[in-house]
Amino acid sequence: MKIAFQGEHGAYSEAAIFEHYSETHQTVPCETFDAVFSSVIKGITDCGFIPVENSMAGSIHRNYDLLLQNPLVVVGEHYTRVRHCLIGLPGATITGLRKVISHPQALAQCEQYLLSLKNVQSEPVYDTAGSVKMVRDLGDPAIAAIASRQAAEIYEMPILAEHIEDNAENSTRFQIIACQPVLPGEDAKTSIVFALKNQPGALFRAMSVFALRDIDLTKIESRPLASKSWEYFFYIDLAGSTEEQNIKNALSNLEEYATFFRVLGSYPRQRILNG
Amino acid sequence: MKIAFQGEHGAYSEAAIFEHYSETHQTVPCETFDAVFSSVIKGITDCGFIPVENSMAGSIHRNYDLLLQNPLVVVGEHYTRVRHCLIGLPGATITGLRKVISHPQALAQCEQYLLSLKNVQSEPVYDTAGSVKMVRDLGDPAIAAIASRQAAEIYEMPILAEHIEDNAENSTRFQIIACQPVLPGEDAKTSIVFALKNQPGALFRAMSVFALRDIDLTKIESRPLASKSWEYFFYIDLAGSTEEQNIKNALSNLEEYATFFRVLGSYPRQRILNG
Repeated sequence: MKIAFQGEHGAYSEAAIFEHYSETHQTVPCETFDAVFSSVIKGITDCGFIPVENSMAGSIHRNYDLLLQNPLVVVGEHYTRVRHCLIGLPGATITGLRKVISHPQALAQCEQYLLSLKNVQSEPVYDTAGSVKMVRDLGDPAIAAIASRQAAEIYEMPILAEHIEDNAENSTRFQIIACQPVLPGEDAKTSIVFALKNQPGALFRAMSVFALRDIDLTKIESRPLASKSWEYFFYIDLAGSTEEQNIKNALSNLEEYATFFRVLGSYPRQRILNG
Repeated sequence: MKIAFQGEHGAYSEAAIFEHYSETHQTVPCETFDAVFSSVIKGITDCGFIPVENSMAGSIHRNYDLLLQNPLVVVGEHYTRVRHCLIGLPGATITGLRKVISHPQALAQCEQYLLSLKNVQSEPVYDTAGSVKMVRDLGDPAIAAIASRQAAEIYEMPILAEHIEDNAENSTRFQIIACQPVLPGEDAKTSIVFALKNQPGALFRAMSVFALRDIDLTKIESRPLASKSWEYFFYIDLAGSTEEQNIKNALSNLEEYATFFRVLGSYPRQRILNG
């Protein structure tokens, strides 16, 4: 299989792909999340691995928006621990640093650590693994990057500090996107997105279709509708698959009064956190 | 009054302060949102003006996190239209551009416009008004900034294009933070934050305390608890103030089974969108 991910070789997404599959697959780096979606739609790759949420920094909203804009389905999920490394040039020291570059999410996840380094400025760049490549190419020992252990190995750069994330529980959830749905099996999750009339109690009524059937919601997320100020799309993940009768009933009940409704996919639930 | 805002003079937040008050107040620029909160806590300023949500790009999560971490209260809100300008050096042309810099939220709100400019790369920097200053100081006509009309005027730089936001409805909601609560009056809103046991139906039960009393929720937002993976804080805005008996009842009902509960503030509701 060919699997698309955002970033350069050594990205956290690529490490998650290797962790998720027991077999070896070909990983295809893409510059942007948009490019990951296009690559799957055009059939250049069989599926894409996209981060949707981090346990500390919250949702990666761009991917929620792209899920809605593209005709792909969610076929799987993967949770992984995030262990950030501070990576510099050979000979660089932590006390000699003046700037740390990385993806804004990585910088946010190491905020306390970065504040503990005196007089070090942080600067957002587009990619974690890419930031290591930039540090190598800039050749300035006062600049370091935050990225994965794999990125340090790929670019043959020393790790100045490990586990610099503010919270040891730091983990990221990925969703796997493809053109065709899968059979989710018995222990499944379903992701849906819907919009409601902007009126009192609307979301409460929407949630009642699940609560009255004892369906467990594992996640709720709201995103503004681009077309209408201060109205929202709601993204919900629930335990169970669209093959189950009570889920079918709940969803058709919701569809009755939603102004927009789409099932993003049913897929096998991952219960064990790797790494 | 002295009012703190994030950014340099010419920032959208500063423009919103001038729009909100009929009297003239002294505006105090701060480098970060953290600095806005500190400035109010230390009494250097009387209140702070912080953006909490944009109708297109969604919530500014950093400020939700800071509201929780700091002992300040919300005393007001302000909605404003966002009109983005492309600002370059004197003599610069749109066709000659190679790079556009601005705050990531401003870049996100002009995404379609930026994609329509061929071979132009976008680069995130910390501030919209600051990006105009950077363009002026860099002196390269191939680089432009996205910021407000006010920023162009302050730095005496020409506007290359106006209204470049992807959606004309683009608006931002600010909250005003201070040390002491205000009397919110009759047409009020209340902001609260709470956490729940991670069990099926928990959020549904939490929302029922409002639905059963016909209390209108105007916003719901979830943020991960940094201390515990995959558990959430819920931020809710509701119509009404803590002076009203039914709101008091609903909140004390919610407090009974919330694992964490705090009222961020009751404040006058703004119904008219300025600008």
